[in-house]
Amino acid sequence: MKIAPSILSADFANLGRDVQLLEQAGADYLHIDIMDGHFVPNLSFGMPIVKALRPITKLPFDCHLMVTDPAAYIQPLATAGATMIGFHAEATPHIFRIIQQIKQAGCRAEVVVNPGTSLSTIEEVLPLVDSILVMTVNPGFGGQKFLPLMLKKIQRLAELKQRHHYNFEIEVDGGINQTTIKRCYRAGATIAVAGSFVFAAEPAKQVNLLREAAEAEQL
Amino acid sequence: MKIAPSILSADFANLGRDVQLLEQAGADYLHIDIMDGHFVPNLSFGMPIVKALRPITKLPFDCHLMVTDPAAYIQPLATAGATMIGFHAEATPHIFRIIQQIKQAGCRAEVVVNPGTSLSTIEEVLPLVDSILVMTVNPGFGGQKFLPLMLKKIQRLAELKQRHHYNFEIEVDGGINQTTIKRCYRAGATIAVAGSFVFAAEPAKQVNLLREAAEAEQL
Amino acid sequence: MKIAPSILSADFANLGRDVQLLEQAGADYLHIDIMDGHFVPNLSFGMPIVKALRPITKLPFDCHLMVTDPAAYIQPLATAGATMIGFHAEATPHIFRIIQQIKQAGCRAEVVVNPGTSLSTIEEVLPLVDSILVMTVNPGFGGQKFLPLMLKKIQRLAELKQRHHYNFEIEVDGGINQTTIKRCYRAGATIAVAGSFVFAAEPAKQVNLLREAAEAEQL
Amino acid sequence: MKIAPSILSADFANLGRDVQLLEQAGADYLHIDIMDGHFVPNLSFGMPIVKALRPITKLPFDCHLMVTDPAAYIQPLATAGATMIGFHAEATPHIFRIIQQIKQAGCRAEVVVNPGTSLSTIEEVLPLVDSILVMTVNPGFGGQKFLPLMLKKIQRLAELKQRHHYNFEIEVDGGINQTTIKRCYRAGATIAVAGSFVFAAEPAKQVNLLREAAEAEQL
Amino acid sequence: MKIAPSILSADFANLGRDVQLLEQAGADYLHIDIMDGHFVPNLSFGMPIVKALRPITKLPFDCHLMVTDPAAYIQPLATAGATMIGFHAEATPHIFRIIQQIKQAGCRAEVVVNPGTSLSTIEEVLPLVDSILVMTVNPGFGGQKFLPLMLKKIQRLAELKQRHHYNFEIEVDGGINQTTIKRCYRAGATIAVAGSFVFAAEPAKQVNLLREAAEAEQL
Amino acid sequence: MKIAPSILSADFANLGRDVQLLEQAGADYLHIDIMDGHFVPNLSFGMPIVKALRPITKLPFDCHLMVTDPAAYIQPLATAGATMIGFHAEATPHIFRIIQQIKQAGCRAEVVVNPGTSLSTIEEVLPLVDSILVMTVNPGFGGQKFLPLMLKKIQRLAELKQRHHYNFEIEVDGGINQTTIKRCYRAGATIAVAGSFVFAAEPAKQVNLLREAAEAEQL
Repeated sequence: MKIAPSILSADFANLGRDVQLLEQAGADYLHIDIMDGHFVPNLSFGMPIVKALRPITKLPFDCHLMVTDPAAYIQPLATAGATMIGFHAEATPHIFRIIQQIKQAGCRAEVVVNPGTSLSTIEEVLPLVDSILVMTVNPGFGGQKFLPLMLKKIQRLAELKQRHHYNFEIEVDGGINQTTIKRCYRAGATIAVAGSFVFAAEPAKQVNLLREAAEAEQL
Repeated sequence: MKIAPSILSADFANLGRDVQLLEQAGADYLHIDIMDGHFVPNLSFGMPIVKALRPITKLPFDCHLMVTDPAAYIQPLATAGATMIGFHAEATPHIFRIIQQIKQAGCRAEVVVNPGTSLSTIEEVLPLVDSILVMTVNPGFGGQKFLPLMLKKIQRLAELKQRHHYNFEIEVDGGINQTTIKRCYRAGATIAVAGSFVFAAEPAKQVNLLREAAEAEQL
Repeated sequence: MKIAPSILSADFANLGRDVQLLEQAGADYLHIDIMDGHFVPNLSFGMPIVKALRPITKLPFDCHLMVTDPAAYIQPLATAGATMIGFHAEATPHIFRIIQQIKQAGCRAEVVVNPGTSLSTIEEVLPLVDSILVMTVNPGFGGQKFLPLMLKKIQRLAELKQRHHYNFEIEVDGGINQTTIKRCYRAGATIAVAGSFVFAAEPAKQVNLLREAAEAEQL
Repeated sequence: MKIAPSILSADFANLGRDVQLLEQAGADYLHIDIMDGHFVPNLSFGMPIVKALRPITKLPFDCHLMVTDPAAYIQPLATAGATMIGFHAEATPHIFRIIQQIKQAGCRAEVVVNPGTSLSTIEEVLPLVDSILVMTVNPGFGGQKFLPLMLKKIQRLAELKQRHHYNFEIEVDGGINQTTIKRCYRAGATIAVAGSFVFAAEPAKQVNLLREAAEAEQL
Repeated sequence: MKIAPSILSADFANLGRDVQLLEQAGADYLHIDIMDGHFVPNLSFGMPIVKALRPITKLPFDCHLMVTDPAAYIQPLATAGATMIGFHAEATPHIFRIIQQIKQAGCRAEVVVNPGTSLSTIEEVLPLVDSILVMTVNPGFGGQKFLPLMLKKIQRLAELKQRHHYNFEIEVDGGINQTTIKRCYRAGATIAVAGSFVFAAEPAKQVNLLREAAEAEQL
Repeated sequence: MKIAPSILSADFANLGRDVQLLEQAGADYLHIDIMDGHFVPNLSFGMPIVKALRPITKLPFDCHLMVTDPAAYIQPLATAGATMIGFHAEATPHIFRIIQQIKQAGCRAEVVVNPGTSLSTIEEVLPLVDSILVMTVNPGFGGQKFLPLMLKKIQRLAELKQRHHYNFEIEVDGGINQTTIKRCYRAGATIAVAGSFVFAAEPAKQVNLLREAAEAEQL
């Protein structure tokens, strides 16, 4: 299980320090939540923050666009050193084109689905994507409670992946802690975003707790 | 002349440190540029950054909303400790109501006008506002060149203020350096925002250079 | 079969009287069609009308939001005494959140699907909702003709409900009369909205005709 | 001074009765506030209510569109018997065309300006309109307090009218009571909208109080 | 296999001549790509061009609306002599109504799906439509490369059509040449749009090449 | 008086021919009306038509953007060989920036004002622009009647120009014929757009009639 701590719960007065803690903690990705206050009712941050972080860490950037015009962010993010760019299937009628644009920009392409969004709406792009992010809370704010209904959705997605021999990662985001990460892992998730849990105590320790919990034998 | 350094040019990996430098430098305000990627073609940052800064500085927050729905940010900013909240006259048909809402939230109300926006479009609210921010570059990005045409606009605004005994501050934002701040000051500006100039060298020194330049006798 | 007469066909000069007639007629719900002229090309009415009706009837309010921003109406409707709040799946990328918000406001949550909207688009929220409203005409105006193609959709929804042991009501809205209500009932509908049929003659009588027709043995 | 009571403060369960009271009270116009929940943060009502009122009163309808797409309402309102149609200058880049369309539909054309909107923005259409409505509160809700700053605006508009020999009415809307109506009248207003004041007691009596107060000699 | 050459690749300085060449070439339809620069990032042309072509050719017009408000174009296109009107399922929450409106206007109704749009989202209207257009490139520009992933989508659509005895045409649009048309034909397509291929050489010859290639025995 | 015939009234089946007639007629500019069906209720045409015309004429292109996002068209138009690019002051809060962008792209910058738009709204950019286009009909369609009220607006603009020694052209567009062009010329206009008049008969002759009428001594 790969761990992608989200900086949304970090200390924005000391972001460099927090990001370095995450890198030392062995995080697999840095999850970067870009919200424009239109697609979700919260404006988090945009390119100025991403650009400031690139020089101070080697962690791959997993950028999660919660914006109404994802196409406008692809080139800037690619230039700023993003590894993966995710956008919401609900945000555009042109999912296929945006996936192509992300790949042409040299990044890995991820499609994100809200809790209420059916997997059937993205079935045409499953052969194409590098990752599917299943929201396990409603997007927009940190610190929300995991939605257990999402476990079946993860399972169904994992089954589709296996049946058709697809290669995408299955990422989960929202309410991830030691208990929920394990349930997601068993359902088929391969990357877990974690925000408030990671920063609730010593980040390095928390990242390890998550990883161990995910792959522990007993539930 | 009051100096309001903008954090848009600060180091977002070490924002706390930079803000404290500005406080030690004797800045009068901290200018906070909130952009949503819709009103201007740049998404800077929103409430998470504002909230992170409030505990670490006593500087009054001069928040400049470059967003299409300014009303949605008033209560959150007031709660987060904003002193002044500015919004663009071009962003809403309800300027009067938004000024009232800012005041009811306990903050000082500022109206911002783009370089191409006439003063005549805000004449009904001049008796009401605490400050008018005259953009001296087009909003959206740091590091742009001062527009000299704006000096006459500042003068005309200062004349209106004097003729009608209005009390508002006249704030300028964009391309401010030792030369332009003096010209703005002579034209009637009372607060100057400065971004890239302040962070081009030692902030404390740069803030002092600006203040001295503004009020020096020779141009 | 529960009957939910819609006030859209009532006499708006005498709404109190008409609503009381419906209550005396034994209606199960008062169906309240809130249209904003944006989601549908008709502006019907909003909170002022809902508030005026609450004091004069004990009928539960079944509010049907045909608006582009359903989230903004939840708290006002709950405060005004709504029992059920329905919103269109097509109106928002955040169906799951809105269902949660309706429930947190103490109301029953209903998702509405337009005639051309597939059931597959709402499959993730079926375990969660209190009701699904299947539009049997295109929303926006009263007095339209029932779309027979919708009967199969109702059947498929009823099958999903049975197979998964879901609890939601199946509501139908549009072109309901003695013939179509029976067909909907047989297909699995449990609540029928009726507008022009109810007000075409004596409401009390018309409501009874509908109920009897629905459950009569012969088609 | 003509009095235009607004139905926004009437009893929507007994609208016919209230409208007839206003007619008996000798009201000059029935002011009809159409809000779409987009131009202002309130959805009041639309065509169904207007249509229901036309058969029960001879009062001329003074329709005030607080909507983002006023052009769409012109023909329906004209067909429903409107006498005057007002729309917000802030709602459209095409004020001139909409005035023409209202006139071609056989109605009187009125332009409405928000409290913060300058008269200079409508100067090109002053020779053309039948009425200018100066908002004396921010539009969207009944029961707000009159904004005294608007008196000077009314005066300036009356001066423009006199200087150029224009023919338009000057209408005021918001916070009108016995005191404020007199001040508006002296400033040059010719029509006053009144909502909560009229329905605070016996409408017939309140309408008379307003009319007498407006034209009384002492302030 | 019917061939529908698109004028998007014609010479707009000599459109009449090019259209007549296509008619002489035996084209089955004239494919007319109407783009508004909002639904897709390209503004092609609208009614003035359609109206200019109707008098000079007998070819049936197959109009493909890539616009955010398809309803507004139905009546003008019908009046201008359109035979078929297609609109994007992603462009409106009211697909069913728009199909009805196209038919009421006397035209054949076509629903268009972007490459990333699932067939499941249009399953409710399959019994109703005259044609489904499967985009085989992302809409907006001529000259793009065929997306082979779309062949399976065409097959699945053809299977649905056969299983349920539906009557619709299956149209393909994007990257059509001698190779891809044959693959589409074998997958079940019945109409092929072709733009740059047709105008790459002598149109009459190119149209024949396409038709022969489609139905040739060997792949 | 410079004459800028508009292709909106040309024959779109033979645009090349008509444009060449205009060039032979000695037109000063080719006026190109780009409408997106959003800023105005008509979609005319976009870049494909502009690109097709550049190779066949030496006439300077005077491009008039009636679109909601003018910034998106600047670079494509400049690349396609536009000489002047005009955009509506009502279409953007960023008039100053767009003027700068047009100039940086190597073109002449023009601001267009609708009939109902006050000159006061553009006063800040008068020192900056190359041309002001005063609409003399409401934009969106050819063949409309000249609005005589606009003559005073042209005069006021000409006075501002003279008083401040500005250099901009004053262009008029809408309802131009032999009578109205003379009145516009006397009021101070320096460029006249003409559409239906030019194509009502032999274009070369009509262009000459306009020019002669404009500068003839008697009105």
